[in-house]
Amino acid sequence: MALEKEDIAAYFRDLQLRICQGIELADGQGTFREDSWDRPEGGGGHSRVIVQGQILEKAGVNFSAVHGPLHPKMVSSMDIQEEVDFFASGVSIVMHPKNPWVPIIHMNVRYFELSNGQHWFGGGIDVTPHIIIPEQATWFHQQIKAVCDQANSGYYPKFKAWADDYFYSPHRGETRGIGGIFFDYLKSQSDEEKYQNFDFVKEVGESFVPIYSHLMQINADRDYSKAEKDFQLLRRGRYVEFNLVHDRGTKFGLETNGRTESILMSMPPMASWEYMYDENSYPEGAKTLSLLKKGIDWA
Amino acid sequence: MALEKEDIAAYFRDLQLRICQGIELADGQGTFREDSWDRPEGGGGHSRVIVQGQILEKAGVNFSAVHGPLHPKMVSSMDIQEEVDFFASGVSIVMHPKNPWVPIIHMNVRYFELSNGQHWFGGGIDVTPHIIIPEQATWFHQQIKAVCDQANSGYYPKFKAWADDYFYSPHRGETRGIGGIFFDYLKSQSDEEKYQNFDFVKEVGESFVPIYSHLMQINADRDYSKAEKDFQLLRRGRYVEFNLVHDRGTKFGLETNGRTESILMSMPPMASWEYMYDENSYPEGAKTLSLLKKGIDWA
Repeated sequence: MALEKEDIAAYFRDLQLRICQGIELADGQGTFREDSWDRPEGGGGHSRVIVQGQILEKAGVNFSAVHGPLHPKMVSSMDIQEEVDFFASGVSIVMHPKNPWVPIIHMNVRYFELSNGQHWFGGGIDVTPHIIIPEQATWFHQQIKAVCDQANSGYYPKFKAWADDYFYSPHRGETRGIGGIFFDYLKSQSDEEKYQNFDFVKEVGESFVPIYSHLMQINADRDYSKAEKDFQLLRRGRYVEFNLVHDRGTKFGLETNGRTESILMSMPPMASWEYMYDENSYPEGAKTLSLLKKGIDWA
Repeated sequence: MALEKEDIAAYFRDLQLRICQGIELADGQGTFREDSWDRPEGGGGHSRVIVQGQILEKAGVNFSAVHGPLHPKMVSSMDIQEEVDFFASGVSIVMHPKNPWVPIIHMNVRYFELSNGQHWFGGGIDVTPHIIIPEQATWFHQQIKAVCDQANSGYYPKFKAWADDYFYSPHRGETRGIGGIFFDYLKSQSDEEKYQNFDFVKEVGESFVPIYSHLMQINADRDYSKAEKDFQLLRRGRYVEFNLVHDRGTKFGLETNGRTESILMSMPPMASWEYMYDENSYPEGAKTLSLLKKGIDWA
């Protein structure tokens, strides 16, 4: 039996709800509010957001299943000649914690299908600590390496390098955080392979709650100083820059008339910019900046 | 005697210094720090910034005079076939005040010359009130209309409409602020016309200090509540969005390896984002949002 797009979308919607339950439990106070929306050209979504939780200052979990004629911007970027319809469904998440010791996290799983028969999965999970704690970076990469290795021993090295490249701000000469995995155009030649790819995407999705609950739990009670809060606000500013200047998903969403409030759920509740920030003013910060590089073998 | 690029650049540098003096006087406390920088491919600039003045929380006045081979991104955007060198000089300014009643202001004057003989002026001045006070919006537009009318009675209507179009965020369906004037490719067919165009650009530049000093003076002592401060932070978030997503100058600078700290001088010291902001929560804010439209005849 072939794996149908409706089944994949139904899984993603269920995943969204289970992730929200898991994160509410981990936060201990915040509850998600849901806004459902329709896309004029076809389909729609459900956006779920926590504002002012106990640990999470702002957390967004977005589900969408949209379809319609392929947008001209996509036609040209995908080198497709014919006029085709597309179907896309996925879950995307960004969470901004209050405590600077808890990292920002981002996760996305998605499925894309064209009316000409092409279809593929994409996704990834990556972490942006405000202040890098190397043992935790190692732990995170080991977790996602295990998820990858279950499916294919070639995935982690390939998708880890892809994340390093994708989550890089050329104008700052730094990576957004400690990376993770990023993958796209995961295509299937057979029904069997499509199920296998879906299983991998599911494992990535299912890894979110245990990974982030752990990172919340071990860091949320840690004391922090004004220097650490200030540094968090600056790092959030860099997160804004990456998302608005470089992130293809954000740019594509805004350019193709997507739902702005859902796309920009990823913006932090508050961020700062300082002209010519002096890294020596906060030594832990200087150490973090020195680790925002491609190619670090965290696992 | 032909007007040479060196003369124009010298005027811009002098304008920068005089604007800084005027703004220091208006602020009453802040003093500009200057960073001089070289551009590896040719030329350089001087960036001047006030941090934590009395009225101004962050104010940047940038001068640059750069040259070298025209960047591929510009060649394609300007529809030039041949390989040419360019020279560009200008002053650009963004100021973020502490008090939400004082508006954000932006000004830019620039000159561009290609080794194939083409040359033109560009620039503009526009105001982004956090909370729009219609009488002040009218006053501002009357001031710049007078500057324009001195040179050419067709300038204000044309350059005002250009600013409305340029400073528009499609993804928010709103203008950045109350606009002002924006112009580009102001070309000259004769030496005499080049002097006339330069005179106009000078008048725009010279208008900055009297205009903004007045707006600072009449608003800086006004009391404000937490609701007004919160609204300022949200409007600064929209300012960040416009500059990073849409502003051609910012995008071009970042894409062509410009000096990031000078380009992003325009970022506010602190900004916020709120998912699904409810405009009814602050009536003055709702009124402001209703005025962020193209085509309002403020003058």
